Amino acid sequence: MSYRDIKADVLRRITSGQWPPGHLIPSELELCDEYGSARATVNRALRELADEGVLDRKRKSGTRVRAVPLRQARFDIPLTRLEVEGNGASYRYALVKRAVEPAPDWLRARMGLQAGAQVVQLTCMHFADGTPFQHEARWINLEALPQAREQRFEEVGPNEWLVETVPFSDVEIGFSAVSASKELAGFLGCQAGEALFQMERSTWFEGKAVTYVRMCFQPGYRMKTSY
Amino acid sequence: MSYRDIKADVLRRITSGQWPPGHLIPSELELCDEYGSARATVNRALRELADEGVLDRKRKSGTRVRAVPLRQARFDIPLTRLEVEGNGASYRYALVKRAVEPAPDWLRARMGLQAGAQVVQLTCMHFADGTPFQHEARWINLEALPQAREQRFEEVGPNEWLVETVPFSDVEIGFSAVSASKELAGFLGCQAGEALFQMERSTWFEGKAVTYVRMCFQPGYRMKTSY
Repeated sequence: MSYRDIKADVLRRITSGQWPPGHLIPSELELCDEYGSARATVNRALRELADEGVLDRKRKSGTRVRAVPLRQARFDIPLTRLEVEGNGASYRYALVKRAVEPAPDWLRARMGLQAGAQVVQLTCMHFADGTPFQHEARWINLEALPQAREQRFEEVGPNEWLVETVPFSDVEIGFSAVSASKELAGFLGCQAGEALFQMERSTWFEGKAVTYVRMCFQPGYRMKTSY
Repeated sequence: MSYRDIKADVLRRITSGQWPPGHLIPSELELCDEYGSARATVNRALRELADEGVLDRKRKSGTRVRAVPLRQARFDIPLTRLEVEGNGASYRYALVKRAVEPAPDWLRARMGLQAGAQVVQLTCMHFADGTPFQHEARWINLEALPQAREQRFEEVGPNEWLVETVPFSDVEIGFSAVSASKELAGFLGCQAGEALFQMERSTWFEGKAVTYVRMCFQPGYRMKTSY
């Protein structure tokens, strides 16, 4: 491993909380062993991290993690209905499309599904006071949730149904910005190419992928928190 | 207050944690008094919230908050340098512009500054393996932090300096998507109009606004977390 890989790995252990502030990290020799690297390589990684204020090296008492200026932000992610109503607006849900189909390759890769796996694909819209608020594209793994095949999702959106159906365990969330495609722009009533805030969420239950959803918000949407 | 305003207010109390799941909320009569609304209005708000599964109304034991499917996501927000290095890339910082100037009106409004208040305005770039990673536009309130006037910010970026200087207390964070302006596109090496993920952060210390920063990331950037 290069000194840069070692640096990255040490940083990951620190930022993940595996090595909290004050933690005494393994000795240089132990790290050489673990990373299979020369002492000079490990030394360079640790020296740079010390120079950058991440590690505190003391000749006699070893190397400790300094209080790293890492901030944690917590975001409350309510159901879309509650978010809209919490803003004092009226909420409306509409199902645009529902289909049972073989999972496309990109989805199989993302959810870890076998060839031929079937999913329910849903496209939904959420409105606030009659104005497009959020476009939802969702896939539900029928192997994990066969009862989704019977659901029509016409009255109640998949998010609310899933919350009641699956006491879900593991969630991965991603925030990003996307350019509105023509189709998305049509749904959201904006220009193609406009910048949209996107939230993606993947959910697993007992090791099985349950659902993947991509939510795009109206232009100008801002997700806020304070701490 | 309309029934919709009351609904929104009750939801805010629930999603803010003021009324946690299981909490016994005030009686209809008490809420009429508090909101200055007719009983029918309060009743409609509570009935809809019960229909939507947010409240649980029992004739004898009163109305309680049901376990609302609210999810909390926690994001680790490390220093940009640590984020870049944590990805195994080399980090470089560059100061683009530094100026001491009167706070523009929009900033005075946002930070609550008086007319004539002076700020340090900084434009900085952060690179990962030589590629533009993040554009930072920052304003520091000189009334709160007069020592920023002496700082050149040529070697160490303002974020790292601030973290060491201000044991900051209150932070407000916002995530959104913006279209790259021509200027931003030039800095980030992308096309004008491309969708960029933006993080804004306002910091107060002992009630005084310290700094406001707007960070725009390279196209395709994705902020991830799992829980």
